[in-house]
Amino acid sequence: MTSAPSTLLVHNAYGKSEVRLTKIIRQPDHQEVKEISVNIELEGDFSETYMSGDNSKVVATDSMKNTVYALAAQHPLDSIESFANHLAKHFLKRYEQISQATVQLRESLWNRVVLNGNEHPHAFTSAGNERRSAVVKATRENTSIQSGIENLVVLKTTNSEFWGFVRDEYTTLPETRDRIFATAIEATWAYGEDNPDFNKIYDAVRNIMLEVFATHRSLSVQQTLYEMGRRALDACDRIEEITIRMPNQHHIAMNLTPFGLETKNEIFVPTDEPYGLITGTLRRP
Amino acid sequence: MTSAPSTLLVHNAYGKSEVRLTKIIRQPDHQEVKEISVNIELEGDFSETYMSGDNSKVVATDSMKNTVYALAAQHPLDSIESFANHLAKHFLKRYEQISQATVQLRESLWNRVVLNGNEHPHAFTSAGNERRSAVVKATRENTSIQSGIENLVVLKTTNSEFWGFVRDEYTTLPETRDRIFATAIEATWAYGEDNPDFNKIYDAVRNIMLEVFATHRSLSVQQTLYEMGRRALDACDRIEEITIRMPNQHHIAMNLTPFGLETKNEIFVPTDEPYGLITGTLRRP
Amino acid sequence: MTSAPSTLLVHNAYGKSEVRLTKIIRQPDHQEVKEISVNIELEGDFSETYMSGDNSKVVATDSMKNTVYALAAQHPLDSIESFANHLAKHFLKRYEQISQATVQLRESLWNRVVLNGNEHPHAFTSAGNERRSAVVKATRENTSIQSGIENLVVLKTTNSEFWGFVRDEYTTLPETRDRIFATAIEATWAYGEDNPDFNKIYDAVRNIMLEVFATHRSLSVQQTLYEMGRRALDACDRIEEITIRMPNQHHIAMNLTPFGLETKNEIFVPTDEPYGLITGTLRRP
Amino acid sequence: MTSAPSTLLVHNAYGKSEVRLTKIIRQPDHQEVKEISVNIELEGDFSETYMSGDNSKVVATDSMKNTVYALAAQHPLDSIESFANHLAKHFLKRYEQISQATVQLRESLWNRVVLNGNEHPHAFTSAGNERRSAVVKATRENTSIQSGIENLVVLKTTNSEFWGFVRDEYTTLPETRDRIFATAIEATWAYGEDNPDFNKIYDAVRNIMLEVFATHRSLSVQQTLYEMGRRALDACDRIEEITIRMPNQHHIAMNLTPFGLETKNEIFVPTDEPYGLITGTLRRP
Repeated sequence: MTSAPSTLLVHNAYGKSEVRLTKIIRQPDHQEVKEISVNIELEGDFSETYMSGDNSKVVATDSMKNTVYALAAQHPLDSIESFANHLAKHFLKRYEQISQATVQLRESLWNRVVLNGNEHPHAFTSAGNERRSAVVKATRENTSIQSGIENLVVLKTTNSEFWGFVRDEYTTLPETRDRIFATAIEATWAYGEDNPDFNKIYDAVRNIMLEVFATHRSLSVQQTLYEMGRRALDACDRIEEITIRMPNQHHIAMNLTPFGLETKNEIFVPTDEPYGLITGTLRRP
Repeated sequence: MTSAPSTLLVHNAYGKSEVRLTKIIRQPDHQEVKEISVNIELEGDFSETYMSGDNSKVVATDSMKNTVYALAAQHPLDSIESFANHLAKHFLKRYEQISQATVQLRESLWNRVVLNGNEHPHAFTSAGNERRSAVVKATRENTSIQSGIENLVVLKTTNSEFWGFVRDEYTTLPETRDRIFATAIEATWAYGEDNPDFNKIYDAVRNIMLEVFATHRSLSVQQTLYEMGRRALDACDRIEEITIRMPNQHHIAMNLTPFGLETKNEIFVPTDEPYGLITGTLRRP
Repeated sequence: MTSAPSTLLVHNAYGKSEVRLTKIIRQPDHQEVKEISVNIELEGDFSETYMSGDNSKVVATDSMKNTVYALAAQHPLDSIESFANHLAKHFLKRYEQISQATVQLRESLWNRVVLNGNEHPHAFTSAGNERRSAVVKATRENTSIQSGIENLVVLKTTNSEFWGFVRDEYTTLPETRDRIFATAIEATWAYGEDNPDFNKIYDAVRNIMLEVFATHRSLSVQQTLYEMGRRALDACDRIEEITIRMPNQHHIAMNLTPFGLETKNEIFVPTDEPYGLITGTLRRP
Repeated sequence: MTSAPSTLLVHNAYGKSEVRLTKIIRQPDHQEVKEISVNIELEGDFSETYMSGDNSKVVATDSMKNTVYALAAQHPLDSIESFANHLAKHFLKRYEQISQATVQLRESLWNRVVLNGNEHPHAFTSAGNERRSAVVKATRENTSIQSGIENLVVLKTTNSEFWGFVRDEYTTLPETRDRIFATAIEATWAYGEDNPDFNKIYDAVRNIMLEVFATHRSLSVQQTLYEMGRRALDACDRIEEITIRMPNQHHIAMNLTPFGLETKNEIFVPTDEPYGLITGTLRRP
C-alpha cells in the first residue's frame, strides 16, 4: 500500500496508560481493597499501521483496557508483580505479532480504619500519595521483574549535616551541622530470579528505608542513600540491584535578624523548587 | 490625585497567600514538627491605592509574610486556631487602617516513624494530603473562629446502598443495595465561644467522622453526612454549627459479560470526574 | 420514619461536578468545537434523604449528568450563559421539589490552526488554561447570571512600580520603580437584566483587561485592577458590577553581586508561592 | 572512613532540578522575556560522599543553581540549546571531578499582547502549557544535543478513522470512520552536528506537526505520527532522528438513545484516563 519509505521507523511502541482498577476481595469476616493503575506498552510487528494505516495487526488500546479488567477478575492480585507478569505473558501468548510487552503497575495504598484499637473489616483511609510499583518487561525469551516504592515522603528534624563541600566563586550556601532532611524516597529493585516472595521483600525494603532514614547520622543525602541501598541488599538476598532516587526538599532557615529576633534553627521555609536530586544504583559485588 | 470616581469601589481586600512555614520544637527527648500554610486577607482603608496608586497606607504583602515568620518564632503553635487568632489580632492592633483581618491556616500532618513498636523522637512520614484547617475572621468588635478537616479520604467496600430515587426519562443509573462508598471528607465547624480546647475537639470530630463512616449503614451519602454532623454536635457541646461536604467518588462496576465472565460486584473503575457533591450544615436546635 | 431531630439541618445542597462535554457543530464549510465542564448544585425539599435515607425526592446526580448531555444535544451552545440558564430553568421546571438550581459552566478555549495565513476548518490548538465561565443561580422567582474569565495569564516587563508603602519593623521589601508585573486575571461580572449579548460583552471585557494591563503605568496592582474594572463598566453599560482578583506572581530580582556581576534588573526568579492576592469589586454609582 | 564496601555503587548522579529563571532583554524599542526551567545532572568522581560522607569533591546543588543565574546574566539566551550547551560545558571545564553533565531546559512561551493589530513592546500573554525543550549531554569527548516540543495540545473534529483492527474476545470498541482526534504532541529530535540554527529548525518542526495534524487523513494515530516524523526529516536535513509520542485523548461519543434522541456524532465525553499512548522513532535511511 506504500512505496519504499523515505525514512526508517527504527522503533515503535504503543499501549494504554492509566487504566485504573479497584478490586474488592470479599472474605467471610473481612474485605480487602486493591487499587491499581496499569500502563501497558507493546512492541512488535506494527509497522504497517504507521506506514499505511493498515490496522489488521493492531490490538486496540481499548481492548488492552478490557483485558486488564477481565484478567483482574480471574487473578487473586496477591501481588502487583504477579499480576503484571500475568498480563505481560498474556499479551505475548495471545498475539503472535507482539514481541515485547511492558506492564507497569502502581498500587495506591489503603489503611484499615481502627476503632477502639480494632481494625475495621471493610472501612479504609487512604495512605496518601505513596505508591507501590512493579514493572514487568517480557519477551518470548526473557522476563525481567522490577519492584518499587514511589513517593515515600519522610522528614527528620535533626541528625543531618552538610559541610566540607566545594567552596568557590558560585558558592553561597553556608555549611551546616544540623539541617532538616526531607525527601520523597523512590526505590526500584530487580531480582536475580523470577518468583521470590514479592510482598515480603517489599515490606522489608520499605522498613529498611524508614529505619535508615530515621537512624542514620547523615553527612550527605548521598551517604544516607548508599546506606539504604547497602542495607536492602544485605537483608534481601534475592535483590540483585537497587536504584534509589531522593529529591532534597529544601527547608531554608528563615533569617529573623531583621525583626530583632535570634535565628535559632527553628523556623524554616519549605520549598518545592528548585530541589536537589540525588540518585544511586547499588549491586552485589 | 484623582477626580471624583466614575465608579464605586464597593469592596476591596488584599493579602498574602500560601506563606509556607515549618517550625521545629526541640524538646530534650524528642522533637516536634509543625508545617503550616498561611493565607492572610486584610480589609480596611485602602481605597487610595486602588484609585490613585497612593500606597501610604498599604502594608506590603511581603511584610505580611515576614510577620508570619516573626510571630511564629515567638508563638508555641500549640494549635493552628490559636496562632491564626494571634496573627489576626496582631494586624488589627498594629495597623489602624485595617478593619478586618482574615487568617486561614492549613496544617500538613506528619506521623512519627515507628521502629520496633517505638515512636522515633525526630523522624516522620507524611500523613498525605489530609489537612487540618482553621479560619479566624476578626474585626475590632468581633472574632469568629472556624476549625476544619480537609481531604480525609476514606473508602468502604460494603454497607452502602442507593435505591428508591427518582426514575424518569433521564435516569439510567441502576439501583444498588451494595456499592463502594468513597469520599474525601471536608468538615468545618464554628464555636459559640472563643477559646475551647481546639485540639481535643479536632480529635473528637475526626474520630467521629471515621467511626460514622465505617459503621453507618448508608442509604445515601446525605444520610451518612447528616449522621456525622449530628454525632459531632452531640459529642462536642462547644460546637454551634458544622458544615460537611462530601464528594461521591464513584467506582463504576465493570461489565464483564462481554468477556464471558460473571459480573460479581468485585471489579470497579474508580473515576475522578464527574463526581457527586453532597453538602449539609447542621446546628443545635 | 425519624423521630424529632436532635439537630437542625439548616442548609443542604447536592449536585454533580465536573461533567465534561465536547460538542461539535458541523457546518458545511467548517466545524466548531465547544468544550465545557458543568457543575450543578440543587437545593430544595431534600431533608428526608439526610434524616432517614428516604430517596424518593432525590434526583440522582447521575441523572443530572445525563440531563446535561441530552440538553446539550438540543441546544445551540451559542453562549455558555444561555446554556447554563437553560439547564437551571430545566431543573426548576421538571422537578417541583427543587427550589434553587445553580449551574456553573467553564469553557476551555480552542484556537483554529492557521496554515499559510488561513484558518483551518476543523483543526484546533488548545488556548491553554484560560477559561471562560458562567454561573446562573435561579429560583422560581429570580435568576442571576454572572459571566467571567479565569486564569488569563499576563506579564509585563516594565511600567510597574511599587513604592511609598508602609515601612516598619516587619518591612524588608525594597521600593522599586521598575518591576515585573505578572498575574492570572480572574474577572466576574453581573448584569442588570437577563439577556444581553453575552459573547460581545465577554470579548469587550477581555480586550479591556489586556489593554489596561499592557498600557497602564502601574503604581500598584490595586491601581491597575481598579482601572480595569472602571474601564469595563464604562464600556459595557449592561454590566452592573465587576469583581476582579489578581494574584501577584512575584519575580524576585536575583542578587548577582556575590558572583562579581552587576545586578541590572534582568535576571529574576519566578515564584509560585507565596503570592500576593489583590481583589476589588466595582459598581456603577 | 569506611571499610571495603560490601556492595558496589555501579552508578551515581546528582544535580539540581526546577531552577526557574526569567530573563528580560531590554532593547530600545521593545523588550523580550525568556522564561526557562533548568535541570542539571552531574556524574563523575563522587563515590566518596556516598560511601563515607566526604563531600570534598561535591559541588553543592545550591551552587549549581547560582551558576545558572550567573551564566544566564552573561549569555544572550538566543536559544535554549545554546544556553544548555554553555552550561554543560561550563561544569565540565570548571570541575575536573565531573565526567558528564546533562542539562535539560524547558522554555515557557509568551505571546505578545496585540492591541489594534500591533504587537505590544513589553506586555505578554502566556502561551499555556506547551514547552520548548532542549537536552545537552556532554562529556569531555562528546556532546549530544536534543531539541523538543512538549504538550502541543491539538484537536481535530473530523478526518480521523479507526477500523480494521483486531477483533477478538476482548474487543468491544466499535469501528469508526469519523472520530475526534485529540492529542498532546511531544517530539524530540537529535542532530548530526553541533550547531545548526536551532530556532529555525524548531519553528519548522512545530509548523510541520501542526500542518500534518490538520491536513492528514488519519487511519490511525500511528499513521499520522509517522507522517509527521517523515515530513520533519524531509524538511530539516540537520535532523538525524526524531521521536514522537502522542497520547490518544479519547472523546467518547455519548449514547443519547436512552433519552429518545438520535446519536449524531456531535456530543462527546472527553476523558483524561485511560489514554492510548503511541510512540515512534524515525531516522534517515
